[in-house]
Amino acid sequence: MIAWKNMDTLASYQELLAADKVDLAAAMSGENGAARVRNYTVPMGEGLTFNYGARPVDDNILDILAKFAKEQQLTEKFAALYNGDVINTGENRRVLHHMCRGQLGEAVIADGVDKREFYVGEQKKIAELAKKVHAGEITNAAGEKFTTVVQIGIGGSDLGPRAMYLALENWAKVTGNLKMKAAFISNVDPDDAAGVLSNIDIAHSIFVLVSKSGTTLETLTNESFVKDALAKAGLDASKHMIAVTSETSPLAKSADYLAAFFMDDYIGGRYSSTSGVGGAVLSLAFGPEVFAQFLDGAAAADATAKNEALLSNPAMLDALIGVYERNVLGYPCTAVLPYSQALSRFPAHLQQLDMESNGKSVNRFGEPVDYVTGPIIFGEPGTNGQHSFYQLLHQGTDIIPLQFVGFKNSQMGSDVLIQGSTSQQKLNANVAAQIVAFACGKDDTNLNKKFEGGRPSSIIIGQQLTPGALGALLAHFENKVMFQGFAWNLNSFDQEGVQLGKVLAKKVLAHDTDGALAVYSELLNI
Amino acid sequence: MIAWKNMDTLASYQELLAADKVDLAAAMSGENGAARVRNYTVPMGEGLTFNYGARPVDDNILDILAKFAKEQQLTEKFAALYNGDVINTGENRRVLHHMCRGQLGEAVIADGVDKREFYVGEQKKIAELAKKVHAGEITNAAGEKFTTVVQIGIGGSDLGPRAMYLALENWAKVTGNLKMKAAFISNVDPDDAAGVLSNIDIAHSIFVLVSKSGTTLETLTNESFVKDALAKAGLDASKHMIAVTSETSPLAKSADYLAAFFMDDYIGGRYSSTSGVGGAVLSLAFGPEVFAQFLDGAAAADATAKNEALLSNPAMLDALIGVYERNVLGYPCTAVLPYSQALSRFPAHLQQLDMESNGKSVNRFGEPVDYVTGPIIFGEPGTNGQHSFYQLLHQGTDIIPLQFVGFKNSQMGSDVLIQGSTSQQKLNANVAAQIVAFACGKDDTNLNKKFEGGRPSSIIIGQQLTPGALGALLAHFENKVMFQGFAWNLNSFDQEGVQLGKVLAKKVLAHDTDGALAVYSELLNI
Repeated sequence: MIAWKNMDTLASYQELLAADKVDLAAAMSGENGAARVRNYTVPMGEGLTFNYGARPVDDNILDILAKFAKEQQLTEKFAALYNGDVINTGENRRVLHHMCRGQLGEAVIADGVDKREFYVGEQKKIAELAKKVHAGEITNAAGEKFTTVVQIGIGGSDLGPRAMYLALENWAKVTGNLKMKAAFISNVDPDDAAGVLSNIDIAHSIFVLVSKSGTTLETLTNESFVKDALAKAGLDASKHMIAVTSETSPLAKSADYLAAFFMDDYIGGRYSSTSGVGGAVLSLAFGPEVFAQFLDGAAAADATAKNEALLSNPAMLDALIGVYERNVLGYPCTAVLPYSQALSRFPAHLQQLDMESNGKSVNRFGEPVDYVTGPIIFGEPGTNGQHSFYQLLHQGTDIIPLQFVGFKNSQMGSDVLIQGSTSQQKLNANVAAQIVAFACGKDDTNLNKKFEGGRPSSIIIGQQLTPGALGALLAHFENKVMFQGFAWNLNSFDQEGVQLGKVLAKKVLAHDTDGALAVYSELLNI
Repeated sequence: MIAWKNMDTLASYQELLAADKVDLAAAMSGENGAARVRNYTVPMGEGLTFNYGARPVDDNILDILAKFAKEQQLTEKFAALYNGDVINTGENRRVLHHMCRGQLGEAVIADGVDKREFYVGEQKKIAELAKKVHAGEITNAAGEKFTTVVQIGIGGSDLGPRAMYLALENWAKVTGNLKMKAAFISNVDPDDAAGVLSNIDIAHSIFVLVSKSGTTLETLTNESFVKDALAKAGLDASKHMIAVTSETSPLAKSADYLAAFFMDDYIGGRYSSTSGVGGAVLSLAFGPEVFAQFLDGAAAADATAKNEALLSNPAMLDALIGVYERNVLGYPCTAVLPYSQALSRFPAHLQQLDMESNGKSVNRFGEPVDYVTGPIIFGEPGTNGQHSFYQLLHQGTDIIPLQFVGFKNSQMGSDVLIQGSTSQQKLNANVAAQIVAFACGKDDTNLNKKFEGGRPSSIIIGQQLTPGALGALLAHFENKVMFQGFAWNLNSFDQEGVQLGKVLAKKVLAHDTDGALAVYSELLNI
């Protein structure tokens, strides 16, 4: 029997608050530090490992976190989720994004349909379409092959798929898997669409319109913008557009699209990269086999999230150490720092994933909680970040836990040997150095040159950023966020906080405003 | 006589701590709210205005902030800076980036040279080169015109110039000012250089190597990477590269470059967009006239930063309200939210500018301070952010002050009318709506749908994102950060916190490691 409890009612949480803190700088020093780094590691699937040697925990705190996981029934709650319970209570929905990449538990029959079969069926339809486009069986009206795919979507229909595309674009180039270039239009700012269209060959572009409801204003506006441009170029828009939407949306059976692919209300936007939302654009860009490898990677990470033993479950471990940092140590933010330029937009995706899921002040029953919840998430790739905001991370007045990501090998294999090392070695030397610099610090009689240390981090290490590794990386963070939501007793799958702005924007556009809103409308010339 | 004092020694700061707080939701409601928004506004130069109606201040708090400005001698300290005092005491350097765009005070003679004349002279040299490149007088060895400019630099040599280029690229397209496309290589990750090179026509590319010291490892590594690629393509690198560096650097007189342009130690990397660091790439991309307009915009904003009266000085006002939010109200972060896709990387630049300048725990004398300093800075363009992390901003457990930016007109002028409004109107309706939603909130018996309000923001409003407006926007934030540094009694112009990582990375590359560092090195295959 599952009990949904606020975190501060748990005996294990009280124990956590009372437990001795770790002196991270001391713990990470000398041979003890070396042993710690060797021990505090767990496989994540797809050859990735999660190393938490430099997080501010010790065996005692890990024991209490294991009790916490049990007391808060994290494994049971995950099982309830993947077995199809209505976990998104606010919107009365199941939460089934894991099912896009595997069957973790029982078959889930909803609306008379086996949902795994439904998602796989849509993947197959997308794969068929992509193959036909690549083979030149589906072409523009002039019979010419499409060379570019342009996603039109916003939020989860943009950030995840865009980050995934960028993560694999260079890999695909060197492995012969770049079937089509991809571009993305998201912002209602007309310069976004106009700018993207000015950079592409519109006559050879296929557009993927992504909106679950079929009513997202930004996306429909950008669709119109693109249709205008196609018409001006003398092109038939219905030969250049596909839709990814729900079966009940106005887009589902429209003659405006070459084809429509379906998702459903059980997949939230920010969890939709492994559904058709990511599937269409990624299958067109890289081929369906590559997208399948990406799903397999995600499935491998999902499997580790089922492990009951905390120390064998990287997502749960990452989640609970994060809760400890946030609620017990009081750190307000988390930085995501991939040492891989290909992951340049991965932090922006995690920003949505995490902050939209757990940026809440009420529990799943709508009652205020008495503890802080989701942190601010931000980040940029290393080594760039080192020359930017790391100054504050090292010597600022707040402590910010860090999530590093690194790969032993580059994607493209081109490199240069300077001063006895390759670029890839320099890149990885930097991330190794940063972890230790943050944890251990350095004393100096000139306090301006002193580093306090005690600044925690973890690192995910992989062989290479392949489609499978990327899938595992993505699923790890999805599952981490889910476990943190369970820990805090939140509903991580709704987003009521986005509604008020929508309502007021409609009023502005209807010129139905007064007070401050009327003045801002006037100042902004609306 | 200037006295450098810690903030907590000021009588006005104690008064600020004791002052009644503002109930922002109440203050922003009804006709009082409308009046407030009309009153709390100040011109920034170049047609921009800074509106702080939705910041958590009232006339009483503004009065105390004005006393604070006087007591902390902000105007005098700025004057000392632009008159050439050694403000960067840690590195024993003047701070002269303002002089790239104007003469705010006395002539500054250093090393026997009038610095304003020196910076203007370098601008002229750059303009000459750019004109020759555009006219086809400087070409590749085959006599063909260069079409692309590629900046090689990291940190301040990358983030600012890149953000400025992206901000103006579409504007330049429609106004006929896009002379050359620009690309940027920054990360030591070899996939960064390899990826960029795979996207450009290397035979028609001119590379701008930017390193003040001439010793930045990432930049020199990427230079080698590019030289290898040029050699493999049978091209003479010395015909394809220019350098921006200091006169004393090893790059200054090398035969490896077509030309070298100079900056000096008085311009910090994160303040260098208006120096040759931004000047070379932007003059090549858009022409020297456009770069001159950008400088004029910055100069216009600088002029407003000299105003002694707080309410006439937008940068000082923004700075001091920020200090109030940070130190009195205890907010840990600030989000930068431009409603302009062209400003997609502007938040990343401000992240460096602010966090590297003021992410410090010691004052300018190297003594620990007893108050928090620089906040975390992050952000993404709206409306994209609305579909991402705004959930937490509206309903999370922390309050995050917001800095909006909006323009009445788009850059490209293409638009589409849907449901009775243009995209540009929808964009601006959203930012107007968000300000009021954050400030005023909305009650609801379902607490999951309730918005507390009381979440502060300001907005900078301009006519259009032109070169001049961009210059003013940039200078505003540079001056804001400077004033906050003065308020906190920091040295905002050094960055000792980046040193330890460099030292340890060198050890890793020399295989001179033990303990935890040795284990990470092994795990990362170095």
